[in-house]
Amino acid sequence: MTTETTPIQFRMVRYPHAGQVDGVWAMTRDALPELREDEVMVRISHLSVDPGMRGWITPKRSYMPPVQPGEVMRAFGVGEVVESRSERFKVGDWVTGFTGVQTLANLPANGLRAIRPDLAPPQLFLSGLGMTGYTAYFGVTDIGRPQPGETMVVSAAAGAVGAIACQVGRIQGARVVGIAGGAEKRAFLLEELKVDAAIDYKAGDVAQQLAMAAPDGIDVYFDNVGGEILDAALGQINRHGRIVVCGGISQYGDMDLVRGPSNYLQLIAQSARMQGFTMRDYIDRVPEAFMALAGWRAAGKLMFREHIVKGIERFPEAFDMLFAGANNGKLLIEV
Amino acid sequence: MTTETTPIQFRMVRYPHAGQVDGVWAMTRDALPELREDEVMVRISHLSVDPGMRGWITPKRSYMPPVQPGEVMRAFGVGEVVESRSERFKVGDWVTGFTGVQTLANLPANGLRAIRPDLAPPQLFLSGLGMTGYTAYFGVTDIGRPQPGETMVVSAAAGAVGAIACQVGRIQGARVVGIAGGAEKRAFLLEELKVDAAIDYKAGDVAQQLAMAAPDGIDVYFDNVGGEILDAALGQINRHGRIVVCGGISQYGDMDLVRGPSNYLQLIAQSARMQGFTMRDYIDRVPEAFMALAGWRAAGKLMFREHIVKGIERFPEAFDMLFAGANNGKLLIEV
Repeated sequence: MTTETTPIQFRMVRYPHAGQVDGVWAMTRDALPELREDEVMVRISHLSVDPGMRGWITPKRSYMPPVQPGEVMRAFGVGEVVESRSERFKVGDWVTGFTGVQTLANLPANGLRAIRPDLAPPQLFLSGLGMTGYTAYFGVTDIGRPQPGETMVVSAAAGAVGAIACQVGRIQGARVVGIAGGAEKRAFLLEELKVDAAIDYKAGDVAQQLAMAAPDGIDVYFDNVGGEILDAALGQINRHGRIVVCGGISQYGDMDLVRGPSNYLQLIAQSARMQGFTMRDYIDRVPEAFMALAGWRAAGKLMFREHIVKGIERFPEAFDMLFAGANNGKLLIEV
Repeated sequence: MTTETTPIQFRMVRYPHAGQVDGVWAMTRDALPELREDEVMVRISHLSVDPGMRGWITPKRSYMPPVQPGEVMRAFGVGEVVESRSERFKVGDWVTGFTGVQTLANLPANGLRAIRPDLAPPQLFLSGLGMTGYTAYFGVTDIGRPQPGETMVVSAAAGAVGAIACQVGRIQGARVVGIAGGAEKRAFLLEELKVDAAIDYKAGDVAQQLAMAAPDGIDVYFDNVGGEILDAALGQINRHGRIVVCGGISQYGDMDLVRGPSNYLQLIAQSARMQGFTMRDYIDRVPEAFMALAGWRAAGKLMFREHIVKGIERFPEAFDMLFAGANNGKLLIEV
């Protein structure tokens, strides 16, 4: 046994109702059972707070089974192996995978992947060099496929995936228009991400602003939000346009009251398509994404911004921040 | 000049408001002006009454400019050339194209295409061997692409495009489930179109009926209706499923109140796509579609059903029938 202090877990004790998360979380301090064959004990250093979490706590068919009431909340994390009963990892190795929202966990070794903290700080494997970066990479390069000179619009462009999508779009040669809420985020898009144009959706009618910022129409729309902004983009989609359905954060509040895109018949008029994807389509191509992203980062073409909340006990607060759009960059918890 | 009687035209005098078509049409009996260079005078025998007409009388960006108030209503038709000032056609030739809702018209020759009434009755070039058939053909074979053994669901399956889509799907080897309203249409699907399963959406919850009729989920959904049925199909779409957005007739009543598909986030969960198209994407491939459809018809694998309304003065009634789903098969007017 190790000399760890009592571990902390966040459990989902009941599903949110009508978008309310009161009473959904319970913090527990349960000791770990004995480590079993083919498991490793991981001391978790960072956790990723993702929009997808909302789907995992909705009792509805999705790409993953929902978290069951009483279970530790599902989350991606990184951490160090402190005890091992697996041949795959030894004490001192760093790993990433579904660690759950907890400080210390016994995890099946075959669900984890080694990371190399000598290549980049460990938390980067949860953001730009992890699933967040890969999602942006494949969404842009494989689903949206902007051609040089085409216009690509990205919503939640100051968010974790959006910020990387903007930069990958520019690297592909597209003219990139970012949409975010507030003057500060808009300035971030223009000054840090170097997008060609940026829209503050809180500053006025989105459709009008889009018409100004994308005067030649929209060839690729990378959607993270759904709702009114998706409709505005559909209304200005070009012939053979591509809408990358990456997320719908404006609609995650209450999954029973999702507003569908009322402009979807533009898909007919413009021979356009809306296509969804998840990372499980691309698991075999992760090395390609890692190489591309790490290479662009090393060449100074790609920057990642992280918003780090310190202390696992602030998990419920971080979860709420994400859905309020209060984070700047990829939201992580430093455990 | 010919010895024709006074021609009749149906003009759109104002756009529908809130789905109401009262006062939209006016019947006129205007004499034709003199035939100009490169025009032909066509005596129209049949007109096609299409769902797309609703889009043409909506003052909104679409794949075609809207009909302007006072203009003759746009329609596909077939007819015989009775006078010609074009080298392309001579008196006695049969042609098809946008003839408008009228009995006699002077039309630019370069907007018309010759048809061969020796190959099939002329009105078939407005239905199964015309745009209706081509739309079903490309929607299934190029957008939906059902593989042998996959499940393809078709809505408005007893309608003009839907009925052909069902049959083309079966020819491609798919297991086809048709959705239509009423016991009579359901019987038509099973007995005449030989679909594998059929649903009467008026007889109970569509999602429940779909789950029974498509127990392995839906690989291709050919949508002609939108609304609740589109949501039900999205809820049961399989991984990498394809939704062919061909029409949204349930939503054409009032284009300002379109209900978007609230289940569209299933596109993410299932890595699925929704894709629209119009025939202008396939103009170059019309001969391929004609050959395939005519060949299958000759081989007894494909039947076309027409619903013929007699008399041009019944155009407003026929238009209403279409949106009430009161037609059985392709709706045509025998002028």
